[in-house]
Amino acid sequence: MKNLVVVAGNGLLDRRAFLRGGAALAAAMTGYTLARSAAAAPLADDPWSRTPGTNVPPYGVPSRFEKNVVRTLSNPNGEPRTQHGRTPHHLLHGTSTPNGLHFVISHAGDADIDPEKHRLVIHGLVKRPLLFSLDALARYPMVSRMTFVECGGNSAPLFSREPIQASVQALHGLASCAEWTGVMLSTLLEETGVDPKAKWLVAEGAERLMPGNGYPMRLLLPGWEGNMNVKWLRRLKLLEAPAMSYYESRTYAPILPNGKAYQFYFLQEVKSFITHPSPGLMLRAPGFYEISGIAYSGNGRISKVMVSADGGQSWAQAALHAPVLSKAFTRFRVPWNWSGGPAVLQSRVWDEAGNVQPTRAQIIAVRGQTAKVPPVTAFPSQHYNGVTSWAISSAGAVSHVYA
Amino acid sequence: MKNLVVVAGNGLLDRRAFLRGGAALAAAMTGYTLARSAAAAPLADDPWSRTPGTNVPPYGVPSRFEKNVVRTLSNPNGEPRTQHGRTPHHLLHGTSTPNGLHFVISHAGDADIDPEKHRLVIHGLVKRPLLFSLDALARYPMVSRMTFVECGGNSAPLFSREPIQASVQALHGLASCAEWTGVMLSTLLEETGVDPKAKWLVAEGAERLMPGNGYPMRLLLPGWEGNMNVKWLRRLKLLEAPAMSYYESRTYAPILPNGKAYQFYFLQEVKSFITHPSPGLMLRAPGFYEISGIAYSGNGRISKVMVSADGGQSWAQAALHAPVLSKAFTRFRVPWNWSGGPAVLQSRVWDEAGNVQPTRAQIIAVRGQTAKVPPVTAFPSQHYNGVTSWAISSAGAVSHVYA
Repeated sequence: MKNLVVVAGNGLLDRRAFLRGGAALAAAMTGYTLARSAAAAPLADDPWSRTPGTNVPPYGVPSRFEKNVVRTLSNPNGEPRTQHGRTPHHLLHGTSTPNGLHFVISHAGDADIDPEKHRLVIHGLVKRPLLFSLDALARYPMVSRMTFVECGGNSAPLFSREPIQASVQALHGLASCAEWTGVMLSTLLEETGVDPKAKWLVAEGAERLMPGNGYPMRLLLPGWEGNMNVKWLRRLKLLEAPAMSYYESRTYAPILPNGKAYQFYFLQEVKSFITHPSPGLMLRAPGFYEISGIAYSGNGRISKVMVSADGGQSWAQAALHAPVLSKAFTRFRVPWNWSGGPAVLQSRVWDEAGNVQPTRAQIIAVRGQTAKVPPVTAFPSQHYNGVTSWAISSAGAVSHVYA
Repeated sequence: MKNLVVVAGNGLLDRRAFLRGGAALAAAMTGYTLARSAAAAPLADDPWSRTPGTNVPPYGVPSRFEKNVVRTLSNPNGEPRTQHGRTPHHLLHGTSTPNGLHFVISHAGDADIDPEKHRLVIHGLVKRPLLFSLDALARYPMVSRMTFVECGGNSAPLFSREPIQASVQALHGLASCAEWTGVMLSTLLEETGVDPKAKWLVAEGAERLMPGNGYPMRLLLPGWEGNMNVKWLRRLKLLEAPAMSYYESRTYAPILPNGKAYQFYFLQEVKSFITHPSPGLMLRAPGFYEISGIAYSGNGRISKVMVSADGGQSWAQAALHAPVLSKAFTRFRVPWNWSGGPAVLQSRVWDEAGNVQPTRAQIIAVRGQTAKVPPVTAFPSQHYNGVTSWAISSAGAVSHVYA
């Protein structure tokens, strides 16, 4: 029973408990059984067992009882401004985001492109400019990779002075993870040849991509900010100097407390957050729960995740679900025996390059936080990767706090 | 340039060519460029670049131009018999099957279950029978696993005496691979306790599962035949002897040439097939192509895939895409320089347990093949895992052959 010792304050249990298939944990849970005793007889037939089912459709969709498991939309009527669709992390338990729930940001709606007519041109500082149809691209060698994509502005609400009361979907829903398949950009650049003067690249904007994710062609740059993963790709131009394009040089360049823009800051740094429990989910009674969440780094693989139930005073190491892939979501899990008293849950992650997720205090010291009446230009809105804290009340409600 | 040597007959190239990022391959392809020369200027604007796009939806769906990337249905009007929905392997390039395209077989349509009212009972030879709601199950430790599910009857058309002319979707479309998340059965059996007399288990028929895949609860047995992965799970009964249930003891028990039933044959053995090219896809001109396909084994990881372009006379080793996971689809790829003459493509796979995929001649010698006028009871219909052969004609058409 040594694996059942509390390893950190407020009831965090040793992560190895459930690597053994549950035996030890089940013994621990017996004191507050989660299931009800049953009779030895089978269940009575439910209504859905007494009638024929529905027909198998050509393209499956989720059950009608899961209609709330959707993206939240910032601009559902498509007014002429940016549209965001955010991933419901608190309603998902794995590492791969279902395609229909992958986050989307579109500055002008989703393009409706006919793949037969779509072309990609590579030009600028190349030896021979080339034009590719999708048929031509399909004949090149392909690679498949599981990788996250994250908006540079994901988690920006945590720059605000007071903790915004919102779900993990609203706070961190602009990051998702999926399997992507396509042709390496290096393969195409070998075809065009590259002028040695070329230092920068402009990308103007697939496999069965959804329109919101760039169908029929997208540039994928694992680990770099989402906006650079250009959707509806049609042009790559090689240049000697940066292009100073509108969004990259204005929106995606964080303003630092000294007033300077942190321009061309591409990397999505090491980050984690707890998805279960999180705001909107309730703890219905004291006893056993599993704390789980997502960790990722634009630098490579996750090496360690620590979890605290007492606001950072003590920490328990989380179990990481295999395979731990480079630049992909890693699901972490820690068993927790909730006493029914107040608790503050946090996660903190290390990557294989030795980077550690900063506390919130550390990141706002460097990047600033939102002014009380923020002028847009002094509004830190990009690249928040500090710790997120969830408070649990005695009633089992979860709220966003700074701790 | 040593990586560009032809390593097997009929133009198969060394797999390491594209592990280097395409440099060597691009040089090889220059002789028959796949792209067209372009002007140095940007492209003219397409119609979809001149109008606002469509709104981001709460749940994304594929582009309308991909309306043919769907499952094929054996019983679209839901007549009172089994419904099959098959995965379009020839239109997918990765390893993870999109949820909407995961294969489905339902003997009585898809159940429409209210998760609030659904219960799972575990009883029979247990110490204390227990009843679980979904809320109760959600509090147990969970695991996530990428695994394939395959119907025991997948690939059964290859038992026929003559090669049936059909796509890889029709021949092998009853296997798919996805990430599944849930509670280990062992965790729940520790809760109920198991009577030492228990040897067998009856399963009567969840995370955001689709109705066709068992929402809200499914039994997942990685590596074992699909029908045992019971959907809409509501009862587990532990028994001393097999239950001799209708489908398992009749439909899923292969009849051997000696007339005996190969009963309780659960494992899905080591298998592979080429998806690109495959029937329905055309080679439009001689030159470079990538041959790719899927390999998997109910015994664990894939260790090696060999590919032939001359009907099995010579073989080239395929590159395997990482991560190679136990009991999951592994994508293999081989570069191929098609001369424009006739070719016969085959793949053959080995797993880490040392099992090798049999040739078709080897498997029908053991299991038999379809009689000319088959009585149902002498119809081998389950567990075909032999080699599949695609013939390429000089016109670039792909057909199913026995070779």
